[in-house]
Amino acid sequence: MRMRKKKNCDARMERCSDIWIKEPEKYKGKWAERFGNDNPIHIEIGCGKGNFIVGMAKMYPDVNFIAIEKVEDVIVMAMEKTVAAELTNVLFMDMDAEKIEDIFEFGEIRRIYLNFSDPWKKNKQAKRRLTHKRFLDRYKAVLKQGDYIWFKTDNKALFDFSLNSFAEENFKLENISLDLHNSKFEGNVMTEYEQRFSEQGMPIYRLEATYLGWEDNRKKES
Amino acid sequence: MRMRKKKNCDARMERCSDIWIKEPEKYKGKWAERFGNDNPIHIEIGCGKGNFIVGMAKMYPDVNFIAIEKVEDVIVMAMEKTVAAELTNVLFMDMDAEKIEDIFEFGEIRRIYLNFSDPWKKNKQAKRRLTHKRFLDRYKAVLKQGDYIWFKTDNKALFDFSLNSFAEENFKLENISLDLHNSKFEGNVMTEYEQRFSEQGMPIYRLEATYLGWEDNRKKES
Ligand SMILES: C[S@@+](CC[C@H](N)C(=O)[O-])C[C@H]1O[C@@H](n2cnc3c(N)ncnc32)[C@H](O)[C@@H]1O
Ligand SMILES: C[S@@+](CC[C@H](N)C(=O)[O-])C[C@H]1O[C@@H](n2cnc3c(N)ncnc32)[C@H](O)[C@@H]1O
Repeated sequence: MRMRKKKNCDARMERCSDIWIKEPEKYKGKWAERFGNDNPIHIEIGCGKGNFIVGMAKMYPDVNFIAIEKVEDVIVMAMEKTVAAELTNVLFMDMDAEKIEDIFEFGEIRRIYLNFSDPWKKNKQAKRRLTHKRFLDRYKAVLKQGDYIWFKTDNKALFDFSLNSFAEENFKLENISLDLHNSKFEGNVMTEYEQRFSEQGMPIYRLEATYLGWEDNRKKES
Repeated sequence: MRMRKKKNCDARMERCSDIWIKEPEKYKGKWAERFGNDNPIHIEIGCGKGNFIVGMAKMYPDVNFIAIEKVEDVIVMAMEKTVAAELTNVLFMDMDAEKIEDIFEFGEIRRIYLNFSDPWKKNKQAKRRLTHKRFLDRYKAVLKQGDYIWFKTDNKALFDFSLNSFAEENFKLENISLDLHNSKFEGNVMTEYEQRFSEQGMPIYRLEATYLGWEDNRKKES
């Protein structure tokens, strides 16, 4: 994502103002109200240009989706796709996922999608990985009991790191695949990165992780 | 292992009679007695030609090792290596691992090694995989609380299957590596298959799995 912010980005974002949440903190604990229904809420962190979230929102009209992305030049493309598809079950926030605890109440989120997250290859950058304990702790603070994180990546080292990180942090791993496109998983929605890497013949890794220690966490929170 | 049984195999096995256990059932619950000490007991299932078990036994003289292998033509080579190395902390059984519950008491084993187990590629052969639920249930019946299974393989599909199998059967996964030889793991002892595959540049997958439901299992057993 080495794009410079494009000149007309702000104007383009403004044109998507119906689905662009500028002050997400305002809705903490009130997302059902904002969507106008009690459908489960799924979030994607680092949605990039939005192929995944748009595809999912079409496939699951009874789910509310929220996409989080910190780079404006890409989130604007995701928002434009959503407007063009006339979807009413997707909202966007341009922010850093570090702050999700300020945005969602404990238990407000039913699923988190992490797709092709930046690998941050160097050891000293490990803390920035979206599957680092630092982030997993934040996810625990917004997820509902028994719900999960869906994670996929082309990056073997990141997948390895993530398997261990989830297992250490009391998540139960499920439906692990070391080659998603040759697995039994159905209904996969491809992301931009996934399209590119799988065209190059690279295997895609995937897992689901359910947080097991919800009861304890609840106690800690209250 | 498509070898035919060599003609002089029986005679060669007899020459290793000190370390070859012909009637393992006799020692159920009495392995400490058989070894003459209370050191922890580790078993390897499918030891092949024995490079691993011999290397481990040299490295850990205060551990008692038992190698299980169902093909006589390979176990005999492992036994000969052990005799040549004058090791007193390794015993061998030529049997099928299916029967380990007849050989070991609940809690008698501290660790199980599975190295490059046969992948049994076809779905209908899945039950024969040494990481299939059918085997994991047997391991649960001989392992001590909090102790683990160490598993490594070159086979991606088998590793994938095994990750899921362990996670489903209430094992906690630890120290997962999708590329053992480029990981931080120290003191790795190579097997024959590992030597061959890593020379070909293939990555080696590895994991440790600890059984979590010991308390419940104990109750079920008693
Ligand atoms: C490698 S791209 C993948 C994009 C898309 N998910 C795909 O699979 O095609 C990773 C995206 O995550 C975003 N991202 C990384 N860390 C983030 C964070 N802490 N908060 C929000 N977005 C983040 C980046 O800006 C980038 O757009
Ligand atoms: C692919 S070889 C690997 C040998 C050795 N562990 C290595 O890594 O070089 C698998 C071995 O496991 C043995 N084996 C497979 N299933 C077994 C079972 N149920 N009981 C005992 N041995 C078994 C086979 O006979 C074979 O020698």
